[in-house]
Amino acid sequence: MTVLVFLDPAHDDGRLVDATQPQLLATDLGATRGDGIFESMLAVDGTPRKEQAHLDRLASSAAALDLTVPGADAWSRAIRTGLGAFAEAEPDRTHAVVKLVATRGVEGAGQATAWVQVAPVPAATLAQREAGLKVLFLERGYDSTVAQRAPWLLMGAKTLSYAVNMAAIRYAKAQGADDVIFTSSDGKVLEGPTSTVLLAYDRDGRRTLLTPQLESGILAGTSQSALFVAAKEQGWELGYGPLEPHHLLEADAVWLISSIRLLAPVLSLDGQELRTSAALTAELTGLVERFV
Amino acid sequence: MTVLVFLDPAHDDGRLVDATQPQLLATDLGATRGDGIFESMLAVDGTPRKEQAHLDRLASSAAALDLTVPGADAWSRAIRTGLGAFAEAEPDRTHAVVKLVATRGVEGAGQATAWVQVAPVPAATLAQREAGLKVLFLERGYDSTVAQRAPWLLMGAKTLSYAVNMAAIRYAKAQGADDVIFTSSDGKVLEGPTSTVLLAYDRDGRRTLLTPQLESGILAGTSQSALFVAAKEQGWELGYGPLEPHHLLEADAVWLISSIRLLAPVLSLDGQELRTSAALTAELTGLVERFV
Repeated sequence: MTVLVFLDPAHDDGRLVDATQPQLLATDLGATRGDGIFESMLAVDGTPRKEQAHLDRLASSAAALDLTVPGADAWSRAIRTGLGAFAEAEPDRTHAVVKLVATRGVEGAGQATAWVQVAPVPAATLAQREAGLKVLFLERGYDSTVAQRAPWLLMGAKTLSYAVNMAAIRYAKAQGADDVIFTSSDGKVLEGPTSTVLLAYDRDGRRTLLTPQLESGILAGTSQSALFVAAKEQGWELGYGPLEPHHLLEADAVWLISSIRLLAPVLSLDGQELRTSAALTAELTGLVERFV
Repeated sequence: MTVLVFLDPAHDDGRLVDATQPQLLATDLGATRGDGIFESMLAVDGTPRKEQAHLDRLASSAAALDLTVPGADAWSRAIRTGLGAFAEAEPDRTHAVVKLVATRGVEGAGQATAWVQVAPVPAATLAQREAGLKVLFLERGYDSTVAQRAPWLLMGAKTLSYAVNMAAIRYAKAQGADDVIFTSSDGKVLEGPTSTVLLAYDRDGRRTLLTPQLESGILAGTSQSALFVAAKEQGWELGYGPLEPHHLLEADAVWLISSIRLLAPVLSLDGQELRTSAALTAELTGLVERFV
């Protein structure tokens, strides 16, 4: 089942509501303009992972949209309320998706609508993690420097306006692929529609993890960031783009990493098979599963 | 007041609901992903203007998003229900905003959520039409050819993912301006966040109306299109871009045209005053007000 908790000044720990009943006004700018922000995090045994990183990114997205949202404490309390209700309803599930959403609220009201949703991890997500991904490169239309000169494009913010991300995934599926890596108009590798790109080189005893540079207008990946910290402690070298498609084709392994699907191996790019490494995937997944 | 009518197979003329009560599930992909489409049209004395053009564009947006939405007849009946209820509630208002919204519905349900909203025309909209607009050029980040090679960017579709459009208007207001004209990364004039760009040259007895070329990835303007038909009958010559900023600076008048605000004169661009023409504005507004 899905659990919903609205953040509400009259309810310190959030207001638990029935997710099967309508809870949003049709005039909410989240629904009519995609004007809002979100985060998705994994909870294991009732505890959210990387909670502070997600709350920090939510605050950063809110700032980019000039949106006043509840503070981290209010979110944390609502998350606990949601996870408690979820554990009661689904005692056998160890994992849950915790989604935080804040919209600009009803036009003119000047008050964000904010809620926490707790739901099971979709089976399709787990299946993709196990099976790996066929991926298409698709152009994102932007050049890799636009984010720095055009803040109104909200490039580093995780907004509710995800229609293009969803359309890109539909386009990939219609071509028989599973997911997408966006490229910039100047030929740089950017990110997946809902994930961060990660690649590994394992050469002459040197092991390097690479990800595209943040300045190219991509979302700061909370999982990539935590994995880099953990991998560095294990002796990995780290690198931040700029990356071009050939870097992925030459790598010893490529993954898409995100908070729910975690580390999913990329099997092919535009139909061209990639090198994969079960050993590297297992080693890095071991680090990812220790995130707190 | 705001009137809401949900399209519902069990209700031929739509299902009238209370707009002050929650009507949407928090799990609707319209609210969580901006995954849906909309149209806004003006109704005068209970009759929507350019209804067929809006329904045609809605169908075109739905196709771009691979979204199955109710047919034109169902929308028309719901619009009539909404306008009837609005006329009863607000007998003194001659004008109303009729908004059509269709989302992808709840994840996995495979059933669009669709509704019609009827509300008064905001006073601020009328004030802008009268006063004219200070406008900023802002980069949209895309080049003017991307729409033709990257359908997943949904460039010609009117989606619910309007966070960037809203952010651009906020950015303009923070700079003391009223509205925005987007430019492409290759220097072409595109469109406003919620309007079409229109300019007039009146030279040596030749009167020409110009608008940016549709192929540059802009939304097909229903008002611009209807105005072009009407103006041609009045002897105007017509032109379709490509346009660059200097064309606007050299024009005899520039407007942003849209279905609710209608023809709003642009007074300045990036702080540089433009030529305006009360006579041309009056003449073209006369044509716009005769749209059916």
